[in-house]
Amino acid sequence: MSSPLIGRRLALSLQKNLWLSAPGCRQVSKAAAKAEVEFDYDGPSMKTTVPGPRSQVNEMNFFCNYEESRGNYLVDVDGNRMLDVYTQISSIPIGYNHPALLKLVTNPNNMSAFVNRPALGILPPENFPDKLTESLLSVAPSGMSRVQTMACGSCSNENAYKAMFITYRNKERGYSAPSVEDNTSCMINQAPGCPDLSILSFMGAFHGRTLGCLATTHSKAIHKLDVPSFDWPIAPFPTLQYPLEEFVRENAQEEARCLEETEDLIVKWRQKGKPVAGIVIEPIQAEGGDNHASADFFIKLRKIATKHGCAFHVDEVQTGGGSTGKFWAHEHWGMDDPADIVSFSKKLLTGGFYHKDELQPYRIFNTWMGDPSKNLFLCEVLNVIRKENLLDEVARSGKALLNGLYALQVQYPGLLSRARGQGTFCAIDVCDDATRDKILVRTRDKGILLGGCGQQSIRFRPSLVFKEYHVHFFLNVFNDVLAEFK
Amino acid sequence: MSSPLIGRRLALSLQKNLWLSAPGCRQVSKAAAKAEVEFDYDGPSMKTTVPGPRSQVNEMNFFCNYEESRGNYLVDVDGNRMLDVYTQISSIPIGYNHPALLKLVTNPNNMSAFVNRPALGILPPENFPDKLTESLLSVAPSGMSRVQTMACGSCSNENAYKAMFITYRNKERGYSAPSVEDNTSCMINQAPGCPDLSILSFMGAFHGRTLGCLATTHSKAIHKLDVPSFDWPIAPFPTLQYPLEEFVRENAQEEARCLEETEDLIVKWRQKGKPVAGIVIEPIQAEGGDNHASADFFIKLRKIATKHGCAFHVDEVQTGGGSTGKFWAHEHWGMDDPADIVSFSKKLLTGGFYHKDELQPYRIFNTWMGDPSKNLFLCEVLNVIRKENLLDEVARSGKALLNGLYALQVQYPGLLSRARGQGTFCAIDVCDDATRDKILVRTRDKGILLGGCGQQSIRFRPSLVFKEYHVHFFLNVFNDVLAEFK
Repeated sequence: MSSPLIGRRLALSLQKNLWLSAPGCRQVSKAAAKAEVEFDYDGPSMKTTVPGPRSQVNEMNFFCNYEESRGNYLVDVDGNRMLDVYTQISSIPIGYNHPALLKLVTNPNNMSAFVNRPALGILPPENFPDKLTESLLSVAPSGMSRVQTMACGSCSNENAYKAMFITYRNKERGYSAPSVEDNTSCMINQAPGCPDLSILSFMGAFHGRTLGCLATTHSKAIHKLDVPSFDWPIAPFPTLQYPLEEFVRENAQEEARCLEETEDLIVKWRQKGKPVAGIVIEPIQAEGGDNHASADFFIKLRKIATKHGCAFHVDEVQTGGGSTGKFWAHEHWGMDDPADIVSFSKKLLTGGFYHKDELQPYRIFNTWMGDPSKNLFLCEVLNVIRKENLLDEVARSGKALLNGLYALQVQYPGLLSRARGQGTFCAIDVCDDATRDKILVRTRDKGILLGGCGQQSIRFRPSLVFKEYHVHFFLNVFNDVLAEFK
Repeated sequence: MSSPLIGRRLALSLQKNLWLSAPGCRQVSKAAAKAEVEFDYDGPSMKTTVPGPRSQVNEMNFFCNYEESRGNYLVDVDGNRMLDVYTQISSIPIGYNHPALLKLVTNPNNMSAFVNRPALGILPPENFPDKLTESLLSVAPSGMSRVQTMACGSCSNENAYKAMFITYRNKERGYSAPSVEDNTSCMINQAPGCPDLSILSFMGAFHGRTLGCLATTHSKAIHKLDVPSFDWPIAPFPTLQYPLEEFVRENAQEEARCLEETEDLIVKWRQKGKPVAGIVIEPIQAEGGDNHASADFFIKLRKIATKHGCAFHVDEVQTGGGSTGKFWAHEHWGMDDPADIVSFSKKLLTGGFYHKDELQPYRIFNTWMGDPSKNLFLCEVLNVIRKENLLDEVARSGKALLNGLYALQVQYPGLLSRARGQGTFCAIDVCDDATRDKILVRTRDKGILLGGCGQQSIRFRPSLVFKEYHVHFFLNVFNDVLAEFK
């Protein structure tokens, strides 16, 4: 079971050999390997097709050997070692078994955090405020100095919605105490205590699968089917043409259309007696197919929210944590006041949301409200990101990846289109979903794990230690696979 | 900061001394200390009022020193050591810093589970099925062999509701594929894809605070106020007289009334076009005030559910894990087929739900779907429960506690009433909420941490290592406090 870890020099030399001996044409990637991840493997190593005989969960999924997984490489139970460009649905920040995280577990000072999970809302550990300052607050979005941790992404968004509803009603009441009628009607789910407020979301969005989140999720029918929902407004998300810089005028028109319709919906729902308390949006619609919009679109949308008294909630569950080349995707908008609420999870290792001072979530509560042990890991992850300048690395790897995808879609015009991305948060469309799925399987059998999203897209979600030489290795294998489908 | 741990003999002798030298009258507790918790402290040790100068979060809450906390004792930042009869809202199963759990963290074989959190739904770790068999499946409720882990209690219930909705609609469709209309309408939150189905819950219930859960929670207005909800039926939960065995006839009448109304509501909501897909109920309404009902009530309710084609969901988030003297509170009903779904969290350290084979939650999914590292801890907790026969201990401690509460309510008739409980899952009512709150503070200042629930109840939620001598120590201090309020 033991695949030895390799040192710096050996890794580079192995990498070069692998490079030269790999099959297929090499025109896409020209750079030599320049960096390495100390605790990484030297490359994939495939023993069987995936899922192999021991690993199989079902047709698509497999059992993993996380003990043997390292850095960018996921090892399965059949001993297949794959370059992981999907990273547990984008939730592994700095690769598998990072030494800094292993060290943290063995530090006796941290043991208590693992075995004594507190009710954080009432009995926080002594060091929790300091640890929050060191972790989440050290990367707080512009204009926000408050954060509430939660156990997962769905809970983060559910509670962010609640904070927006409570704030909206507080404002309506003029910050006075709720009436007797408020307090009695809410006990039986009726207005005015349980008001007919709404959250405006966008077609194609994914914000989670609990009942509140699901009412704002519109990516795939299978997520929503059979579950009761709310009559909340759903605005069109711009359908842009890529590369963005080549279609500036057309895209601006499309975005203007969507903004106009958004504003119409806000007015319409207010007239229907279901005012919009908040607008929720992803900086890049991920699950829905990696749909981008311009900074200008978000800036204008934020203004519309303010104009109509709706809180503006940016859902960074998938985009947050560095993979767009900035820690938060909304930083690309260049705003001092980008949002009222920013929710996160996945790469942040804990769920939660930041909020502005005005949004007092004083009634947001549950038993655990997060997990201090996850926050300890996050402190280390942020240290590693800073120390190793991983955001710069992501920008560099991302550029190589996107350029490679551009080259491939020129090379395979009937097969690939719409290459797009920010940092390593990239995607490309395949001609149809059946071909996309076949390409994913073939690429996996050649030792590279990718994920799909939307109707017919492939999404790239490596961890932050995905280097340029991993990009080039991927591009070569991908090129070989695509050649089979030409 | 270091309070030395004490050995078995010394603990007993200290305990006896403390017993004799404690102030106040001693008529409530007569038994000598018979057992001990090896890693426990010998008793409370108070340096300041609580919250003390260093600990204060706000008036009620304080910062804790979890490193120094042990067994039944929670230590705060001011060095106050309190006997914990609330245990992080009933979520600490076998006390603080249990040696078995500390050992687990230092075991190098477990490190990977801490640092590599998988997307469990697609890429589970190799040993996860075995670990589930060893942990959750080893304590599966009667008639259930399937379990789905989740990150917290709210997510567990949200997803359990979804499983009930999906199952209901699948049955309605005759298990055929959804129609085109189903698939298109659900994308915009409309029927038939997002059907007008409902979950029937009970007044006084608490099932969590996310939007789906909150529509079934009816314990306190402050939980629900300002959050949009669903028009779902709410049945009356029986208001019984205690002790139950003295009011059998009256209580049976009250339960019959509630069952009749429940059945009426199911019919009424079906006629309204919002059929009841599932009924959710706690075996003991905890947050809502420790409201009990008889086994007969639950047996009849389960029959009503089956008769009307509603799934029956027993929410054991607070009652599960042993504190009623059985691992699941529903075991007290003596049924082979107690439920279709049983949800859990808190003392189980991971959220999740068991379900019958017929309830296929094949579309229940999110990124993490639980956390294998929590499941490792649960394996150890279950080992300790078995090895130390903790359920027997709970039954023994619970009997001493309830008898003590009975004696106290006789002694303080104007102050206390309605003592009730199963195992150590006990409660007692105070004459009014202001007095209740004052008693909680005075008891805490004397080194015992309790919690309130409902309008004017005190709830007892010790961990499973709460022994008879802890009960007697508590009763003596409580007696002293009550004497001040006579």
